[in-house]
Amino acid sequence: MTDKKKTTIVLFSGDYDKAMAAYIIANGAAAYDHEVTIFHTFWGLNALRKDEPITVKKNFMEKMFAKIMPRGADKMVLSRMNFAGMGPKMIKDIMKKHNAMPLPQLIEMAQEQEVKLVACTMTMDLLGLKQEELLDNIEYAGVAAYLADAEEGNVNLFI
Amino acid sequence: MTDKKKTTIVLFSGDYDKAMAAYIIANGAAAYDHEVTIFHTFWGLNALRKDEPITVKKNFMEKMFAKIMPRGADKMVLSRMNFAGMGPKMIKDIMKKHNAMPLPQLIEMAQEQEVKLVACTMTMDLLGLKQEELLDNIEYAGVAAYLADAEEGNVNLFI
Amino acid sequence: MTDKKKTTIVLFSGDYDKAMAAYIIANGAAAYDHEVTIFHTFWGLNALRKDEPITVKKNFMEKMFAKIMPRGADKMVLSRMNFAGMGPKMIKDIMKKHNAMPLPQLIEMAQEQEVKLVACTMTMDLLGLKQEELLDNIEYAGVAAYLADAEEGNVNLFI
Repeated sequence: MTDKKKTTIVLFSGDYDKAMAAYIIANGAAAYDHEVTIFHTFWGLNALRKDEPITVKKNFMEKMFAKIMPRGADKMVLSRMNFAGMGPKMIKDIMKKHNAMPLPQLIEMAQEQEVKLVACTMTMDLLGLKQEELLDNIEYAGVAAYLADAEEGNVNLFI
Repeated sequence: MTDKKKTTIVLFSGDYDKAMAAYIIANGAAAYDHEVTIFHTFWGLNALRKDEPITVKKNFMEKMFAKIMPRGADKMVLSRMNFAGMGPKMIKDIMKKHNAMPLPQLIEMAQEQEVKLVACTMTMDLLGLKQEELLDNIEYAGVAAYLADAEEGNVNLFI
Repeated sequence: MTDKKKTTIVLFSGDYDKAMAAYIIANGAAAYDHEVTIFHTFWGLNALRKDEPITVKKNFMEKMFAKIMPRGADKMVLSRMNFAGMGPKMIKDIMKKHNAMPLPQLIEMAQEQEVKLVACTMTMDLLGLKQEELLDNIEYAGVAAYLADAEEGNVNLFI
């Protein structure tokens, strides 16, 4: 075991702004030399979806979920002031003006900094998401693996 | 004091899916031999309501809250994709197909595993909820008791 | 470094009830002799806005945000059962009846107890909020300062 500090984040939310907060904290902690894990569960899994459509075998319900849920980080919506889709565009415009990184780039940066991105297999199963639909170079695990990380954690957050 | 690891969760949310996440983590941590506490406050108290109507003396506001709020875990709604009540049914159907436990059983399992379920007395008071309306074998406490648990905690989450 | 326990809360949410929960925990922890920090980011910054209009130079987008977002703690709305503004009034009436403190007073109390209130400069920038618009005697910092507090924290919450 190393002496590194640990930050472990459960990303449950599918909101663009909450996912941004999660990845900003994660990238900050990685820059600070923490071992960082983001455990994506429920709607948070959408941040890990590839943005192109992937052909995989799905049953009716799974197809429906796949259609309704945002395909990837860039398509996620705000937790408030969404204004029928206007909100995320506004935020993204403002971010561009301020040279702030949009969510897909925050995720890329996290991968470059070796933040461990984990997809919760139990909720993947419930929502009918397959590994082929999610980003490359992520890990797959359940609640036991999350707890093993979290119980040694200095900073544990549920977002 | 024991050497057991501690997991302490504040369940603030009244959403079915968030409560599921809280109880899945709690049950996992208990199986992992943690001492686990779920402190139910605000809308999270609804997870502890008995599902039958209980006759207790209430003033007008308290009656109104009692009517509007979901009576028990099974009646709670999703944080998103609720579709006028369709969402929870969909999730429950899918969970049945995958042999995943619905929320009321997750709560039962937590009680069997001796997860400490606490109802926040301050918010019970605000929402007009009486002890007779809540599940048996739970504890009643305030923020001081929560902090006493949390400050020794390895995993602290606000859900 | 002192031996004091530390509680560090990220207040991301702009909901009245969630901000109440954050400040109740913070005040409890301060009474318990913890060093307490609330790091206000995104919509949580609204809790720190002064309630009178402040004249500062803003561009079009910033003016729009300033208009749409609640000006100060007292104007924030509930996470559920908002009923077009009825909800917060109901909660406030009930709180008065129970001698519970409304949010603006919880914030005052936190300041008296030397809870460190921090505004996230990155999101202030995004939302166009200026220091003149926020409460006096607060601090300004970014994610690095948050992590420096949190990594030593006993209780870390994201609300």
